[in-house]
Amino acid sequence: MGRLVMKFGGTSVADVDRIRNVARHVAREVAAGHQVCVVVSAMAGKTNELVALCEDAAGGGAYDAAEYDAVVASGEQVTSGLLAIVLQHMGIPARSWAGWQIPVETDDAHGRARIAAIAPAALEEQWENGVVNVVAGFQGIGAGGRVTTLGRGGSDTSAVALAAALKARCDIYTDVDGIYTTDPRIEPKARRIGRITYEEMLELASQGAKVLQTRSVELAMVHGVPLRVRSSFDAPDSPDQVRDDGSGPGTLVCKEDADMEQQVVSGIAFAKDEAQVAVRGVRDKPGVAASIFGPLADAGISVDMIVQNVSADGQHANLTFTVARGDLRRALDVLQTHRDDIGYEEIAAADDVAKVSIVGIGMRSHAGVASRMFRTLSQKGINIEAITTSEIKLSVLIHEDYLELAIRALHEAFGLDAA
Amino acid sequence: MGRLVMKFGGTSVADVDRIRNVARHVAREVAAGHQVCVVVSAMAGKTNELVALCEDAAGGGAYDAAEYDAVVASGEQVTSGLLAIVLQHMGIPARSWAGWQIPVETDDAHGRARIAAIAPAALEEQWENGVVNVVAGFQGIGAGGRVTTLGRGGSDTSAVALAAALKARCDIYTDVDGIYTTDPRIEPKARRIGRITYEEMLELASQGAKVLQTRSVELAMVHGVPLRVRSSFDAPDSPDQVRDDGSGPGTLVCKEDADMEQQVVSGIAFAKDEAQVAVRGVRDKPGVAASIFGPLADAGISVDMIVQNVSADGQHANLTFTVARGDLRRALDVLQTHRDDIGYEEIAAADDVAKVSIVGIGMRSHAGVASRMFRTLSQKGINIEAITTSEIKLSVLIHEDYLELAIRALHEAFGLDAA
Repeated sequence: MGRLVMKFGGTSVADVDRIRNVARHVAREVAAGHQVCVVVSAMAGKTNELVALCEDAAGGGAYDAAEYDAVVASGEQVTSGLLAIVLQHMGIPARSWAGWQIPVETDDAHGRARIAAIAPAALEEQWENGVVNVVAGFQGIGAGGRVTTLGRGGSDTSAVALAAALKARCDIYTDVDGIYTTDPRIEPKARRIGRITYEEMLELASQGAKVLQTRSVELAMVHGVPLRVRSSFDAPDSPDQVRDDGSGPGTLVCKEDADMEQQVVSGIAFAKDEAQVAVRGVRDKPGVAASIFGPLADAGISVDMIVQNVSADGQHANLTFTVARGDLRRALDVLQTHRDDIGYEEIAAADDVAKVSIVGIGMRSHAGVASRMFRTLSQKGINIEAITTSEIKLSVLIHEDYLELAIRALHEAFGLDAA
Repeated sequence: MGRLVMKFGGTSVADVDRIRNVARHVAREVAAGHQVCVVVSAMAGKTNELVALCEDAAGGGAYDAAEYDAVVASGEQVTSGLLAIVLQHMGIPARSWAGWQIPVETDDAHGRARIAAIAPAALEEQWENGVVNVVAGFQGIGAGGRVTTLGRGGSDTSAVALAAALKARCDIYTDVDGIYTTDPRIEPKARRIGRITYEEMLELASQGAKVLQTRSVELAMVHGVPLRVRSSFDAPDSPDQVRDDGSGPGTLVCKEDADMEQQVVSGIAFAKDEAQVAVRGVRDKPGVAASIFGPLADAGISVDMIVQNVSADGQHANLTFTVARGDLRRALDVLQTHRDDIGYEEIAAADDVAKVSIVGIGMRSHAGVASRMFRTLSQKGINIEAITTSEIKLSVLIHEDYLELAIRALHEAFGLDAA
């Protein structure tokens, strides 16, 4: 018996039949004695439809984010009411909540609001009466009393924030059955990871594993909310689905503990939509990096891997970095505009590169991980264009043609292949 | 310059193009210097779609009215946000309001809530800043903090209640250009009525003229809100549309004044979905009417025209009354069940009857109206089955085959035909 937040995304509530399936998952946890708070997204496609209406209303131009929020937040409101009706019909007391009713207090940054506080009292009172709380995700109320939304994927964040406020654990139901060592579409030997730390999950998420929103993992880490990723497509009525000891279905994202370090590398992430820019023959003097990256930041372009080499004459440097492929054209324009300030000889660009990362909490205490990675790639004849590292991650930039080969080779080299 | 509430129904906001048309009507009134509050319904078809989802969620059974309200109220929320975006795009400052934000306080009778109070301060503050208020109709917030809806057609009631709170006049935009002396599809000579009293409008509305919700007319009468019915399909940009003196487009529904009594009869209403029940050979003793109508009321069946005749022997009576045609079967079942209590000889029923009513404030001071009605019908060979009267209305029940003939004959006899 414990407190549990269950979150279901758009595909899990796509129609009333799918909502009935969600209700069966909820019924199982209620039967196991849990106090349950369900967080739901809008029915699949609904949010896009509402966004399109806003765009049409604005004649294709910009629109007021506060009005956008008022329109778009209605999608989750509908799902929460429908799930409450389905649960009641199954004999389970339930009530729906819009963000403003709880309230989920946010700042006034419409369309991308951040949660400031959640008062748990009203939800806990319903629990005392044996009622399942069904909360419209993705939304809150700003200081000015207007409806806010948290930005795309915000329902995960709603769920984790509610779990933190309610001191509950949080199960995120999605269309996959957990976090894998890498994308099983590329490496069929990929294994589901049983447990992973917040830190590893963050590196995997930000490196291209799209299952969980980065923001929700950060929030779970800060508040120590145990997070489980599991599938809403699993048989909802099996009692095997209820386990609180970390051995259950899906992937548990939690704090590091002693027995988690057996695996040096937990997973392999990748990003295909990378582009590389080389700025050659830059005068090697203080402030030159700022003269390049300042204007790019002003243009809202995020820069990732940065490598600086001093040229043979010792007077000039080459700066190489990556940007998202969609930003390449603009990045080159910015550099062209600021050519005189920067003072470079030439620029080269490539949009046929990809990034592969190995992620693992065990890398902190195990030497030789980098050399094993480089050796593995070298044995396959894969050239490394750039390297970046963090405490628990090592990323390399390679030609995109070799991406799948690199993933499979590293998956095997670090012992991730399924038995 | 004045305060104006403009209400637009579902067909007037059916898609973004229609919402743009609504915005042009609003722009015209803003240009004329009015402080405007717009009340909108859900986009046509949307409410039915949401109701169907609730029914599906409940497996075709009953559902929690509070959850129904949470789901269904989202429709108006979407329209209000979209209209605000369109107005802003036209350069007109605007903001949307859900019922709970103003707040529109109601009782907790979900699905059919009644408005208890509306605080005008927040809307007036926006007006001070030159902002058009766009309010989601049909909804409010109950004492328990949950979203309520006012029942079908409730947006008219929202508009009138807001006009009362804001001391504004109220224009109801619909798909017809006003109230007519009778249905123009039956009598092509029907004329649009320029002015009509609340009392006459109520009689016309409850007698089958479906343009305005009875409840909203009652509310307008109680608070003295001048109500204009006009068409959202009229050219929105014509300055002729703006007139505050009662001579403008559509039909003004207002208090009685001296020059309104020229016309004895203002309009002819009718109802086709009537059925007649005759209870024959009832013992003529005190309490017999109660023994019939008590069980019908308990079954939720409304009874309309009642005629009682004492039979030839002076000991027995025949009671004839009408019910809605859809209630006939149940009414007969109720009478059968209570046969012993009532003590009647036989029951006869007819579902091929119709009701025609003449309505006019002038009937109060003009004699001979009833005899002219009866004479007119008699000249056409139309038999009268039953008669009921109020101070400003006279209704007769006739065979439905003669309905159109009766309407046309009365329209001419009371001088309503267009010149």
